[in-house]
Amino acid sequence: MNGPGEAPEGDKPREECGIFGIYGPGLDVARLTYYGLYALQHRGQESAGIAVADGRKIYLQKDMGLVSEVFNHEKLNGFHGHLAIGHVRYSTTGTNNPLNAQPFVYHSSRGMLGLAHNGNLTNTAELRSLLYSAGSVFQSTTDSEIIVSLIAKYSQDSLVDAIRKSMADIKGAYSLLILTGKKLIGVRDPHGIRPLCLGRRGNAYILASESCALDTVGAELIRDVKPGEIIVIDENGLTSHMIFQNGRRAHCIFEYIYFARADSCMDGFNINKVRREMGRQLAREYPVEADMVIPVPDSGIAAARGFAAESGIPFEEGLMKNRYIGRTFIQPSQSIRDLGVRLKLNPIRDVLDGKRVVMVDDSIVRGTTSGKIVNMLRECGVKGVHFCISSPPVIRPCFYGIDISREDELIACRKPLRGIREFIGADGLHYLSLEGLLNVFGEERDNFCTGCFSGNYPVEIPKACEQDKFILE
Amino acid sequence: MNGPGEAPEGDKPREECGIFGIYGPGLDVARLTYYGLYALQHRGQESAGIAVADGRKIYLQKDMGLVSEVFNHEKLNGFHGHLAIGHVRYSTTGTNNPLNAQPFVYHSSRGMLGLAHNGNLTNTAELRSLLYSAGSVFQSTTDSEIIVSLIAKYSQDSLVDAIRKSMADIKGAYSLLILTGKKLIGVRDPHGIRPLCLGRRGNAYILASESCALDTVGAELIRDVKPGEIIVIDENGLTSHMIFQNGRRAHCIFEYIYFARADSCMDGFNINKVRREMGRQLAREYPVEADMVIPVPDSGIAAARGFAAESGIPFEEGLMKNRYIGRTFIQPSQSIRDLGVRLKLNPIRDVLDGKRVVMVDDSIVRGTTSGKIVNMLRECGVKGVHFCISSPPVIRPCFYGIDISREDELIACRKPLRGIREFIGADGLHYLSLEGLLNVFGEERDNFCTGCFSGNYPVEIPKACEQDKFILE
Amino acid sequence: MNGPGEAPEGDKPREECGIFGIYGPGLDVARLTYYGLYALQHRGQESAGIAVADGRKIYLQKDMGLVSEVFNHEKLNGFHGHLAIGHVRYSTTGTNNPLNAQPFVYHSSRGMLGLAHNGNLTNTAELRSLLYSAGSVFQSTTDSEIIVSLIAKYSQDSLVDAIRKSMADIKGAYSLLILTGKKLIGVRDPHGIRPLCLGRRGNAYILASESCALDTVGAELIRDVKPGEIIVIDENGLTSHMIFQNGRRAHCIFEYIYFARADSCMDGFNINKVRREMGRQLAREYPVEADMVIPVPDSGIAAARGFAAESGIPFEEGLMKNRYIGRTFIQPSQSIRDLGVRLKLNPIRDVLDGKRVVMVDDSIVRGTTSGKIVNMLRECGVKGVHFCISSPPVIRPCFYGIDISREDELIACRKPLRGIREFIGADGLHYLSLEGLLNVFGEERDNFCTGCFSGNYPVEIPKACEQDKFILE
Amino acid sequence: MNGPGEAPEGDKPREECGIFGIYGPGLDVARLTYYGLYALQHRGQESAGIAVADGRKIYLQKDMGLVSEVFNHEKLNGFHGHLAIGHVRYSTTGTNNPLNAQPFVYHSSRGMLGLAHNGNLTNTAELRSLLYSAGSVFQSTTDSEIIVSLIAKYSQDSLVDAIRKSMADIKGAYSLLILTGKKLIGVRDPHGIRPLCLGRRGNAYILASESCALDTVGAELIRDVKPGEIIVIDENGLTSHMIFQNGRRAHCIFEYIYFARADSCMDGFNINKVRREMGRQLAREYPVEADMVIPVPDSGIAAARGFAAESGIPFEEGLMKNRYIGRTFIQPSQSIRDLGVRLKLNPIRDVLDGKRVVMVDDSIVRGTTSGKIVNMLRECGVKGVHFCISSPPVIRPCFYGIDISREDELIACRKPLRGIREFIGADGLHYLSLEGLLNVFGEERDNFCTGCFSGNYPVEIPKACEQDKFILE
Repeated sequence: MNGPGEAPEGDKPREECGIFGIYGPGLDVARLTYYGLYALQHRGQESAGIAVADGRKIYLQKDMGLVSEVFNHEKLNGFHGHLAIGHVRYSTTGTNNPLNAQPFVYHSSRGMLGLAHNGNLTNTAELRSLLYSAGSVFQSTTDSEIIVSLIAKYSQDSLVDAIRKSMADIKGAYSLLILTGKKLIGVRDPHGIRPLCLGRRGNAYILASESCALDTVGAELIRDVKPGEIIVIDENGLTSHMIFQNGRRAHCIFEYIYFARADSCMDGFNINKVRREMGRQLAREYPVEADMVIPVPDSGIAAARGFAAESGIPFEEGLMKNRYIGRTFIQPSQSIRDLGVRLKLNPIRDVLDGKRVVMVDDSIVRGTTSGKIVNMLRECGVKGVHFCISSPPVIRPCFYGIDISREDELIACRKPLRGIREFIGADGLHYLSLEGLLNVFGEERDNFCTGCFSGNYPVEIPKACEQDKFILE
Repeated sequence: MNGPGEAPEGDKPREECGIFGIYGPGLDVARLTYYGLYALQHRGQESAGIAVADGRKIYLQKDMGLVSEVFNHEKLNGFHGHLAIGHVRYSTTGTNNPLNAQPFVYHSSRGMLGLAHNGNLTNTAELRSLLYSAGSVFQSTTDSEIIVSLIAKYSQDSLVDAIRKSMADIKGAYSLLILTGKKLIGVRDPHGIRPLCLGRRGNAYILASESCALDTVGAELIRDVKPGEIIVIDENGLTSHMIFQNGRRAHCIFEYIYFARADSCMDGFNINKVRREMGRQLAREYPVEADMVIPVPDSGIAAARGFAAESGIPFEEGLMKNRYIGRTFIQPSQSIRDLGVRLKLNPIRDVLDGKRVVMVDDSIVRGTTSGKIVNMLRECGVKGVHFCISSPPVIRPCFYGIDISREDELIACRKPLRGIREFIGADGLHYLSLEGLLNVFGEERDNFCTGCFSGNYPVEIPKACEQDKFILE
Repeated sequence: MNGPGEAPEGDKPREECGIFGIYGPGLDVARLTYYGLYALQHRGQESAGIAVADGRKIYLQKDMGLVSEVFNHEKLNGFHGHLAIGHVRYSTTGTNNPLNAQPFVYHSSRGMLGLAHNGNLTNTAELRSLLYSAGSVFQSTTDSEIIVSLIAKYSQDSLVDAIRKSMADIKGAYSLLILTGKKLIGVRDPHGIRPLCLGRRGNAYILASESCALDTVGAELIRDVKPGEIIVIDENGLTSHMIFQNGRRAHCIFEYIYFARADSCMDGFNINKVRREMGRQLAREYPVEADMVIPVPDSGIAAARGFAAESGIPFEEGLMKNRYIGRTFIQPSQSIRDLGVRLKLNPIRDVLDGKRVVMVDDSIVRGTTSGKIVNMLRECGVKGVHFCISSPPVIRPCFYGIDISREDELIACRKPLRGIREFIGADGLHYLSLEGLLNVFGEERDNFCTGCFSGNYPVEIPKACEQDKFILE
Repeated sequence: MNGPGEAPEGDKPREECGIFGIYGPGLDVARLTYYGLYALQHRGQESAGIAVADGRKIYLQKDMGLVSEVFNHEKLNGFHGHLAIGHVRYSTTGTNNPLNAQPFVYHSSRGMLGLAHNGNLTNTAELRSLLYSAGSVFQSTTDSEIIVSLIAKYSQDSLVDAIRKSMADIKGAYSLLILTGKKLIGVRDPHGIRPLCLGRRGNAYILASESCALDTVGAELIRDVKPGEIIVIDENGLTSHMIFQNGRRAHCIFEYIYFARADSCMDGFNINKVRREMGRQLAREYPVEADMVIPVPDSGIAAARGFAAESGIPFEEGLMKNRYIGRTFIQPSQSIRDLGVRLKLNPIRDVLDGKRVVMVDDSIVRGTTSGKIVNMLRECGVKGVHFCISSPPVIRPCFYGIDISREDELIACRKPLRGIREFIGADGLHYLSLEGLLNVFGEERDNFCTGCFSGNYPVEIPKACEQDKFILE
């Protein structure tokens, strides 16, 4: 079972955040949001927050840390209301800063307004200038605060119209949850880059980044929110507004490769199945002789299983993962640095000694960890290592909410395939082809954003985009 | 020595905050701000914050708690820069809410902007409406955020002009410190209601709520900031802009009675001397026979000493105060509630037994604690208690930044003098007359706000003022 | 890969503790002990402690919590020395009490003495009486303190002789690490019930509960400490003293079934291999028709894989485990208790719907969680569930350091097989036979303690044993 | 009002601890102990602990920190029982070590046994050897643990007899509270060096270091425990056993000079009165011309007032003390060290400028702080400073529980009077004579320990005494 369901990998892309909202009269919405966020914890471990509304006011609690660290019984019991939104965050555009923790809650001409955002805007600099000249100020460095100021600017319009107009102004990737005293609103960008799905538990409606959060709170998946759709949930039930009807779908393909939890279903695909199929496709593209297929746990497990099934080579667990490394774990100091990756992954010599192995992982970003793992395997007597990656080389940055390293850190930008193989020390190295990756999705193959593999971005990337990041912070 | 130099009294008015700013190239401005705030800790114990600028950016740290709890070595060492502002807060207009901790730091069209505010505006509701319709949103419930939005609205003007125009818009009491990447700016409202003074330490300039903060960081008091003055300090030195020249001075008289530290000098008066004189005046107004004068520590000490000196009755310490009660102290539960005030104040029987005492305090708000103290004295064998208060009865709320209880809680609103005396259980009760209080200040007698004693407010109080408080939060 | 490498299961036996010791001149022994304990974290999450010696004195730090919570950079840097012992604990004989955290460090006639203990004595009551009458007092409720008092009692003997004599006095299971200012000593009970192994890293010697801790600190496994052996490591190198030569070996078989990490080698067996073989044996004993074999993660994974390999039924991951549940996680309240096990384990409907599954786990204690899992599977459309357990029914308590529930909580004590199956709601239920389990170990089959399955205990259990537990605490 | 009622002085002797015990069926004894310890907080700020007994078992909670930091509602509510003891500690013989926090609770042949100790033994080394050879071990470096081991050694005797025999073994200063499941026992050493008093609240009995703790919990002072007395309180009421009848009384005179709270009565004397009288005596011994008498707050206030009354020179408060400095306060770094004592004490220039002052403090130990204060006064324009000390020069260490600096740090050991005066920079310096000090106590003048002033110790000081300290830790 793959997916980044544990402490963040040092050498993996980072998801920006997970969002969860519930409209549930009669339910303990704060506690359900707590459990929903907990199910989405793999999407962000930096900060967590919950905002609860009671028909009139909004109450907010947020802080740096895991969901289980930020909240306790006392805090949850202090929350009274029937609708709520929550957010877990891993920083991308903003710095590691308590002021960037979400949800944001504002006092506006419309009363209190809460916002939780997953994604990244690409015309931030332009929008910020516009808002500055109108007298806006911002406390955080997030683009989320810009969205709220836009909505506030259209103060003469109805809230839905203000959101509609704001959507016309902003470019980029955004799944939003908006909370007023009485309404829960979900918004997904015109290309559906970041995920958002809709569920139901009895009379309650739920909006969440992934369906695993619906499962966790005992809700049923109804459908994914459509690209360009606004969903309003209040005492009158659910209303849908389609704002952008004909946008090209461009779901982030890295959700399927790495981010999403294996037990989620996203825009029609079960993540576990898709990953298994990527492994099968990889085996077809790269027939190899070996004694066993081993995954890099946990991210490579599903693809490794697919590879084993397709190739007929036995699947084995050759690396044991220590699951206790937490946020406060002390990394090895200079003097004992040789322990390195061994603290986290331990090879099982009895399984590996004398064997030729296919090692499967989902992706390589900088390549440093991969090299250390290969080295450990050799020390255990492994005779040959074919390293197979169930996605194409990452050669371009992501502008839509994923924290891939800068281009000069991407090993696939800096070296040819052979150079990467030598850097990692593997006997063979094979990436899944982009064509092969898309084939996994069959008829839907054109509905994904593959920008980080192809440089083919669904939304225009302004020149100033990255620069802006540094100006602001 | 009186002044509220310790844990906040349950039955006393509460000061809103203390502010401290420094422009000091070559100095450890973060640490000096820390010590400055520490000297102002009596003005607010709810939250503390420091913002440091390095010529370009502003760095902020703030949290709930005492200065010594919010900051540690590591945090202070993380601060690099040559100018800074700091704030300690006790909540008045806003709720007990981490989002209300100051300083605030904003990104604006002018770059980063920091603000620390002591005081309270009286036309908040009106200003908020105005700003809402222009698209502003607010994260806190403080009126301080409104000031920043106003300044941002005048984005076409120079910063000083923007401040000037904002001062024309806002009404009420405000001492402000504004920080940009390069400038430290001090502002005092047209009536000078809240205090702000200017000091120097070598080449460094300092602005602070009270002169005791100047002493603590080794600086010299130059003068008080004038009512209606803007002081700008930057690489070109200090510039003064007089915005409102002819306003009536109306310094908060409660600073002299209770809030300010005894070792501060404020708008020309040494606090300790003034309080001593209030006690003398009280003795003149109320000649009484007694064996000793005892203060309610610590607030009544200076006045008690003045009373003793004038009356010739010996001064004694009859009540011992436990100084260890901290923010986390567990109050007595129902079952042992009789311990009450005794945990904090312990009468010395050996001193008191069989004596007739004059007990002196600076003020009575609700009167509940006073009654308990009188009762304790009687249990120690005191034969008669004349309770003397070195200020007039508090009969009206304060709209300028002091948290006096609501009118229906003010004992002097609810009862005639005799009723109060009976409630407290004293044999005699005497308040200093307003006339007597003002006499202490000689020729300056007309330059004080006495609103809470007289209902005579220097700035118009809009009807909506208090109501707004509840709408917002 | 199975083994309890994460937050403790609600419905699993609990290991008492893990121990780690190092004699390493020139090495950062505190930090290496930190990493060694971290590798043993699965053996105890209640408290953690490290004692370091510098040739003269012993320095101790310990507290409640995970290794990464108890220690930080500052604390580790405060430790100077060249030999150390460490301990992670899960409470069995003592209550959840900070005073029970280990290592213990004592001042004795021999100078300072540190002790870390894994195991449980069976003649505690008798020994305690003896020591009481000699004037001993104890601060904790652990039997570990008794061992130290015994050693201290033989104050006229050399340390090794005192340990030897103490070993003659005590009965039960014990792997001990003893630290003096200059010596590291390892002791294993005459039957070798609890594990202890010896490793080397350069010139440094290491003693640890499991070999995975050796791997983690870059050391090589030399051998297991022998039953009845005392190993002394000091400036003269390593000396072995065989105290009990002919004891029957009786290694705790539950280490192999559940406790030890899959990547450890223990008394000659690789844990992962052994568990895989248990699964194969189970498949042989219980031929069944099904569409897939799924494990209960993580404890059932290795056996499930063996079962799948032997039976030819495909292995699938049908249950996704949330790895973020930490010690401070808030359990569902009454009102949303239906979420139950779902917070931790989420079935993947796409994999399971319409299928007949063999679900494999390593053991059942109370059976409550198992029933909830089966129920979840059915809700996902599973057509039939054969629940296979890779160990025999647990019918007796453990007296040697494992916290199995009391007999009246053990489902296999209370119900016949059929009753258990009905309670759990499975269509079939099969336990591995004791014979089958022992077969896995081949010629070594008689060298294990199977007390909890057979009631056949290697060390006499006094009548007073359990009673004593309650008297003391 | 003097007494060390706040954060510990850098340049003052340190009291070892305060103890409080209550036998109160029907009362919330844990909470009353909390308040009692809080009233004794000036006697120790390093650690705090409470042990509660319910007739059968003893429950213990203790930790480093102030009473209000160690305990919270939840912890106090977890305590059930009808008798309790508590302890606040400042380290003397032991290091700053969590293991030294008291009370200690032991399991012994007599059942559970709790101990809280104020004082210091002088034959520790000898006793420890004795106990070591009998097989005792110790977890802490306190002499308190030795006392318990002695009592345990006499396991054949009744508890009172065992205590009696132990008292024959130990030498030095000790006030003890001993707790069993059912009994509260108070013990005072044969000379009554450390204080202990007895109070009553309804049917409850209370034993405490000072009577202010009785006042705080609403109890009445009955009498002081007699030197050499054992008081046993249980369901049969109170029983007194006089063990040493004819010992010379030798109450620690520093309790009266500095340690005890001004509102306490101790062995017949009210502390406030005694200190006032010391100031009077000082004025008689040292007639001086000056404009005002000012105290060093808070320790010099009572004596300053006595001096003023006797001399007729007006009393003034010339130094303002900041009461917020807490345990976590960040001291000035190298770069701004000139702030020094100013952070804590601020001179009031308006009061002091141009004046000749008599500055009164209770004692000088190292003299460093005194010099800084004199210097500050001069910077404020003070014309002359006569520094008057209400106790004789401290020239010898204390062996009975007071942490006076080592002899080589005592300024009065290192310099003649004139040298001290020059070091401090005062124009005059006068210590109260020992004769004058004793006169304050009238007929009781011979019943005090004056060892630190005279070297005349009531209990023999073995040569090894201090050395032992360093061996152990």
